[in-house]
Amino acid sequence: MIDYAALSALAAVIREGSFERAARALSVTPSAISQRIRLLEEKVGCTLVVRDQPCRPTETGRRLCQHMDRVRLLEQALQEALPALAPQGLARVTLPVAVNADSLATWIAPAIARFAAENPVLMDVAVDDQDHTTEWLRSGAVLAAVTASARPAAGCNSSPLGAMRYLAAASPGFMRRHFADGIGAGSLAKAPSLVFNTKDELQASWARRLCHRHVELPRHTLPSAHAFVTAALAGMGWGLHPEALIAPYLEDGTLVELVPDTPLDVPLYWQHARATSGLIDGLSREVLAAARAALLPP
Amino acid sequence: MIDYAALSALAAVIREGSFERAARALSVTPSAISQRIRLLEEKVGCTLVVRDQPCRPTETGRRLCQHMDRVRLLEQALQEALPALAPQGLARVTLPVAVNADSLATWIAPAIARFAAENPVLMDVAVDDQDHTTEWLRSGAVLAAVTASARPAAGCNSSPLGAMRYLAAASPGFMRRHFADGIGAGSLAKAPSLVFNTKDELQASWARRLCHRHVELPRHTLPSAHAFVTAALAGMGWGLHPEALIAPYLEDGTLVELVPDTPLDVPLYWQHARATSGLIDGLSREVLAAARAALLPP
Repeated sequence: MIDYAALSALAAVIREGSFERAARALSVTPSAISQRIRLLEEKVGCTLVVRDQPCRPTETGRRLCQHMDRVRLLEQALQEALPALAPQGLARVTLPVAVNADSLATWIAPAIARFAAENPVLMDVAVDDQDHTTEWLRSGAVLAAVTASARPAAGCNSSPLGAMRYLAAASPGFMRRHFADGIGAGSLAKAPSLVFNTKDELQASWARRLCHRHVELPRHTLPSAHAFVTAALAGMGWGLHPEALIAPYLEDGTLVELVPDTPLDVPLYWQHARATSGLIDGLSREVLAAARAALLPP
Repeated sequence: MIDYAALSALAAVIREGSFERAARALSVTPSAISQRIRLLEEKVGCTLVVRDQPCRPTETGRRLCQHMDRVRLLEQALQEALPALAPQGLARVTLPVAVNADSLATWIAPAIARFAAENPVLMDVAVDDQDHTTEWLRSGAVLAAVTASARPAAGCNSSPLGAMRYLAAASPGFMRRHFADGIGAGSLAKAPSLVFNTKDELQASWARRLCHRHVELPRHTLPSAHAFVTAALAGMGWGLHPEALIAPYLEDGTLVELVPDTPLDVPLYWQHARATSGLIDGLSREVLAAARAALLPP
């Protein structure tokens, strides 16, 4: 049997970021934490934690933490069935999930919040591009994710959520300054675009579809969905925005579409680990219902 | 003299994340990029790029990219003085800066956007905790940052911005459910808190000040300033929110302060590289003016 005291110490170090804080969280001494992890590393035969600020798991360390998360979910289900096991009520389990920033800024945050308010969980939400959240699932860092990929990761189920609609928009002043002579490969190669980060391909995809070839876009990088809108309103650049976030600005004319009727629809999927846990199922129901109300039908 | 063609190739690989995209951006072949970087690595005597997805700079690679950024800023200043050097107008230079998420969600985004709309720059904004943005400056990854540290990093100037006021708040339903018997170490140890990420110490600091000792808080992790507010409104947890973001909800009663008149004020500083560039000075002026209007006076 695996040494679960050691595994708890490992999970705490990863969650807390340091041996000292993990010790505090588990009410033991830092040297106890350190010793448990060293013994576990000797047994497994490799390093499990990169001792950095903050501490990070190695590939194997992450697999072990994932195992721990799943065991805790199973325990939770067991305790629901056998309340005598947990006389003081259910302990909260941590549910790690990965979502894309635009979903978190719009439709999914209320769903996650509602679920968390009504269940004995602690949500650990990571944000990454929808093309990269599958990696988080595959590596076992999370138990569920909003992804751009329909194909289920190993050990996961995949359900279509619908498509998120993006509109290319800018301020009227920006349009006059940069696109007075129309929008094409020439003007797009000069007008600053907004990108969320280096993984954000939306602007490039939209430009490629419009011009039928790759256009090298000048780029401002701004990793916040709301700051993206602020930047567009101030005339900093053009970019693809979730329709839900900019609808009021299109309405009152403070933002305009670059080319009317050229939305970019990004289909999203909900993937979750096939664990025997009612909690994951409950979260999935909440997320799917919110997606049905907010996204374009799959 | 340093081989600036090779340095441009290196900077493009880091910016674009891959050799293929760097090649496209510079209109050369991927093998030309690869060869330039290999020669530079041989000359410097160490690896400059970790070939991963995306490509990342090594410590030395980052130092070289920083040098490149600074040379470009100097070129820009020179071209302003000698317009004949740049007959087609100024090329846009990239200004890498690091800010804390709450500043980006509130007062600094409009300032950066205004500055970028009026100057020949491309902003590259990184987000990190205010206690960690100094690292970005120190490593040379950025030229300016909003930090919690007054002490200037090497080669930098530091100016006080004022303090960002945070209020501990939750929904009335959450208050009834978790704090019906008052707020103290006992109830805080059970009621779920919201934290932005593992670096976010605000909730723990506030609880420590209130209870005069460390309290181990159950934590939901939610890395988005706006989702934080959504989560609070839905009763998911209590947390420290920027006053500017939650003022309307406190007004209409959908959020309430946990303990009235217990704000947490976080002093912020603007640090920037002492480069002889009018662009950095211009950005600093814009940022300091916005801080004066939005933050508590230093």
